[in-house]
Amino acid sequence: MITSTANAQVKELIKLMKKSRVREEAGVFLVEGPRMAGELLEDPAWQDRIERVYLSESYAARHAEETEDISRKCRMEIMADAVFAHVSDTKTPQGIMVVVKRCEYDLEDILGNETGESHVIVLDNLQDPGNLGTIFRTAEAAGVTGILLSRDCVDIYNPKVIRSTMGAVFRLPFLYVDDLPGTIGELKQAGITTYAAHLEGKRSYDQENYLKGTAFLIGNEGNGLRDKVAACADCRIRIPMQGKAESLNAAVAAAVLMFEVSRQRRN
Amino acid sequence: MITSTANAQVKELIKLMKKSRVREEAGVFLVEGPRMAGELLEDPAWQDRIERVYLSESYAARHAEETEDISRKCRMEIMADAVFAHVSDTKTPQGIMVVVKRCEYDLEDILGNETGESHVIVLDNLQDPGNLGTIFRTAEAAGVTGILLSRDCVDIYNPKVIRSTMGAVFRLPFLYVDDLPGTIGELKQAGITTYAAHLEGKRSYDQENYLKGTAFLIGNEGNGLRDKVAACADCRIRIPMQGKAESLNAAVAAAVLMFEVSRQRRN
Repeated sequence: MITSTANAQVKELIKLMKKSRVREEAGVFLVEGPRMAGELLEDPAWQDRIERVYLSESYAARHAEETEDISRKCRMEIMADAVFAHVSDTKTPQGIMVVVKRCEYDLEDILGNETGESHVIVLDNLQDPGNLGTIFRTAEAAGVTGILLSRDCVDIYNPKVIRSTMGAVFRLPFLYVDDLPGTIGELKQAGITTYAAHLEGKRSYDQENYLKGTAFLIGNEGNGLRDKVAACADCRIRIPMQGKAESLNAAVAAAVLMFEVSRQRRN
Repeated sequence: MITSTANAQVKELIKLMKKSRVREEAGVFLVEGPRMAGELLEDPAWQDRIERVYLSESYAARHAEETEDISRKCRMEIMADAVFAHVSDTKTPQGIMVVVKRCEYDLEDILGNETGESHVIVLDNLQDPGNLGTIFRTAEAAGVTGILLSRDCVDIYNPKVIRSTMGAVFRLPFLYVDDLPGTIGELKQAGITTYAAHLEGKRSYDQENYLKGTAFLIGNEGNGLRDKVAACADCRIRIPMQGKAESLNAAVAAAVLMFEVSRQRRN
């Protein structure tokens, strides 16, 4: 059992928890809590990617059978409760944390099985962890095939983002790209119509037909899409707004667009 | 100028900032930041409700003309920067804070001018400040006429909620009620059709007609609507979800429903 916060694994975990760069160099991410960790442990594809499972002493004592089962399937360590709390990213640590190898996706994964049915969300410099998590969660429910992110978006592997995806991050393909305009060009070559969500869009989002391959470009919370990204789109659309509202939250705007696709394709 | 955190006004402000009950007893709320405070100062109806404006010393120095103007229109106090930072709810205080008298609404305000066009959001035990703020912001944009809240919802006057409404809280009528089922009964008597957003809803939300008076009941983030509240609705609807998503974020679900009303009424 790990009983000291000076332990090398503990120090490494804290770096992985706090530093995006360290996570990326190691090619892993951290998942906390019984619900999200349980999902990885029960999914054969993800189980193979688990590098190590950490349990708090009291969690292991409360869940003897599960602990036994985990120790057979994965490399596992028990930590004194105080050490676990020291590592945990949450105020009330739930006693289970998993280090997992990342899954790498490519553009084909993002497009889904049939590019005629692709439904892609493209995020340009999105910064808020809660928004990114909510967009993943919503996207899975709306039947999005994959998510593209500019390299300067917030890190999806940020522990707060992971939690707020409610597991969608394990199931929805995504890809960070250096050259977002270039990648949007590839979408267009694949026959996908690209729509920029833009306050100055001339056409209302619900006047378009999304039955064929569709991608929405969503911009930064404060500044919207960068000009060079918006310029790539086939069409600028807006969500009509009443009152004195000047804009919508980025995750809300994305949700309204994604569920309009879902609605049209269902009907 | 107020130079000490021991000043009686400073102590009172901190209580108003932190305690929902103190704010309620005083019948006021606090608004921070130049954008939101500016909106109150420029709106004649709200200007009359301003009890006091607090500026940090450096804000007043940087905005001499505005400071002069505020001091003519309202009771104003300057605070040393360190004292202002002590009172502020934000990490990087922007130097302006306003204490405002609350505006009281009744059920007629919530229903709007024509009950045939009412568009009401009813929140049952919503707990997350960010969700409540986002729902207000989205609701204004979607043409909602007013918001009803069960008494045990998070306090709309929480400074974090106020900020995340982006000003919609100043413009959209809302009402906390003790007896939510009773109030839903009043909506029905006014001819408004009430829809419970429910994971077990039989009908898809986009199969309904929202051209006449419409109210949506939205439940708690973790538990959904309480049974006794859901039971009041004319109809249970669901938002169809793909993948393994089990639910949507409450603010996202509300947004999808509100913008479907907006879409139908526009077309």
